[in-house]
Amino acid sequence: MRIVVLAGGIGGARFLRGLKRAVPDADITVIGNTGDDIHLFGLKVCPDLDTVMYTLGGGIDEEQGWGRADETFHLKEELAAYGVGPDWFGLGDRDFATHIVRTQMLGAGFPLSAVTEALCDRWQPGVRLIPMTDDRVETHVAVTLPDSGSAAGSGERKAVHFQEYWVRLRASVPAEAVVPVGAEQAKPAPGVLEAIAEADVILFPPSNPVVSVGTILAVPGVREAIADAGVPVIGLSPIVGDAPVRGMADKVLAAVGVESTAQAVAEHYGSGLLDGWLVDTVDAGCVERVEAAGIRCRAVPLMMTDTDAAARMAREALTLAEEVRAV
Amino acid sequence: MRIVVLAGGIGGARFLRGLKRAVPDADITVIGNTGDDIHLFGLKVCPDLDTVMYTLGGGIDEEQGWGRADETFHLKEELAAYGVGPDWFGLGDRDFATHIVRTQMLGAGFPLSAVTEALCDRWQPGVRLIPMTDDRVETHVAVTLPDSGSAAGSGERKAVHFQEYWVRLRASVPAEAVVPVGAEQAKPAPGVLEAIAEADVILFPPSNPVVSVGTILAVPGVREAIADAGVPVIGLSPIVGDAPVRGMADKVLAAVGVESTAQAVAEHYGSGLLDGWLVDTVDAGCVERVEAAGIRCRAVPLMMTDTDAAARMAREALTLAEEVRAV
Repeated sequence: MRIVVLAGGIGGARFLRGLKRAVPDADITVIGNTGDDIHLFGLKVCPDLDTVMYTLGGGIDEEQGWGRADETFHLKEELAAYGVGPDWFGLGDRDFATHIVRTQMLGAGFPLSAVTEALCDRWQPGVRLIPMTDDRVETHVAVTLPDSGSAAGSGERKAVHFQEYWVRLRASVPAEAVVPVGAEQAKPAPGVLEAIAEADVILFPPSNPVVSVGTILAVPGVREAIADAGVPVIGLSPIVGDAPVRGMADKVLAAVGVESTAQAVAEHYGSGLLDGWLVDTVDAGCVERVEAAGIRCRAVPLMMTDTDAAARMAREALTLAEEVRAV
Repeated sequence: MRIVVLAGGIGGARFLRGLKRAVPDADITVIGNTGDDIHLFGLKVCPDLDTVMYTLGGGIDEEQGWGRADETFHLKEELAAYGVGPDWFGLGDRDFATHIVRTQMLGAGFPLSAVTEALCDRWQPGVRLIPMTDDRVETHVAVTLPDSGSAAGSGERKAVHFQEYWVRLRASVPAEAVVPVGAEQAKPAPGVLEAIAEADVILFPPSNPVVSVGTILAVPGVREAIADAGVPVIGLSPIVGDAPVRGMADKVLAAVGVESTAQAVAEHYGSGLLDGWLVDTVDAGCVERVEAAGIRCRAVPLMMTDTDAAARMAREALTLAEEVRAV
């Protein structure tokens, strides 16, 4: 069975670990979000690709869900001592090695997809991990930053890098718009469209529908390839009981005018793209309404408390895919 | 008192610490060797500048004399796990920060002299540290590497970077030639010639006469400026009892046809450059012969066992400078 998964960071990575446990023999291709990539200290950092790679390769910090296990932060301390920022992005000493190797390979002329493959040679994630594009795409968030001491309502409107919005500002101000800068000019990385065309099933894990899965879908050709693949496309809701399971998906959903409910996210993807949708049991009340929108829907437990729970969710998604296929 | 010191790495840095203790109010300018600079993992590493900066700034690993105190090597471990080399150069996690900041500033267009000044803003070494040049100079060593399993005498003749000769090969094969590649085209960094012209005394610490002081002198204009400064130029022998105090200076002295003795090094610098020369008490026998070569010479203890010993050596050098001046 060939499975294609569109993945963001923590949620996508943990779902993938469950998927591998559920179907160990499946041929899994992961199309990774690169819209939250950022250049820090002259180095190219790909947080979502690394979270998938480290999680599936056994190198992740399990507690926080990102970064390396057994990590130290001496380099970062020293950068701060030099007064060189930003200081709000948590790069550990072990993690730095990944960015140094990546930056050196990119500088030598290799595309990000080839670099990612080389990095995965070490981590052996057990999936084929491809960045959505080799081109530069950067998700920017339009915000109004309050002027210190000024009257409410005034402030500076500016676009900040997604990481600055997410990590530095902790989504503390409303996201007024979310723009994947460069996406319109980007081409899918080699292998992306081919993997979609050859897939038996396509899964959207409970990743952020705007800044993770949404960014991947914004690369011209990807959405169309998925819609035209003629195979079941199944998603899992990242919203449980009207709140994101983790992260701050509600903040960026508001920016695109989507309510923070499992039903609204399904309708945001739409029946033109999505064949099946899993919602949590607490959201069972919306199943009929999602189905009325033309998307087959089931309510199952969607809390990824551990890898077994994630594996059960993956099995439910594949079961729903079989139902869709049988129709 | 304005003092100019031409410095390599460990020996130069420890002497400078003594000099600062000996004359705390002196205005000291250090012209640092950059011939052993190397690009590693896409980063610009300046081992001698950093050794001076860390030693005088209180950040040095006292035991080994180079690198940072309280250092860890997690990043290096990870690079090795990625199979990315070289693995023979000891870059620690804290040390990496210096190279990252330097590389980023160089990439932004700042010359090495400005970058070094910025790094010293943090370390406050208490001296003005200037690289000998902002241009790229790389000391290469010609060696014949034995073919594994081949007859003695055969082998591959090649030029290796000085660091590869020194650190990886540990000077285990003879240096057939030492070439400061790029030196002929290099210009002294801003401030170098001015500092020499304004100096009251110029010191050559017990640094390597070939690959440290010799490389600085190879930058066009520097040797001439020192010879023409009209102030005492005093050196301290890095050779004690026919062997280098530390390091492997004898290996590179042989490459330039100089015997590994305190006298031979003095004659190598020559009376056209050097006014005074300090040898260790065990080499007192050569004092008359050095003086016969036109260089005032004294035998004093030259083992830098601690900062007080280095301070005594610095005082002896300044005393000899006064003797020269009084002639």
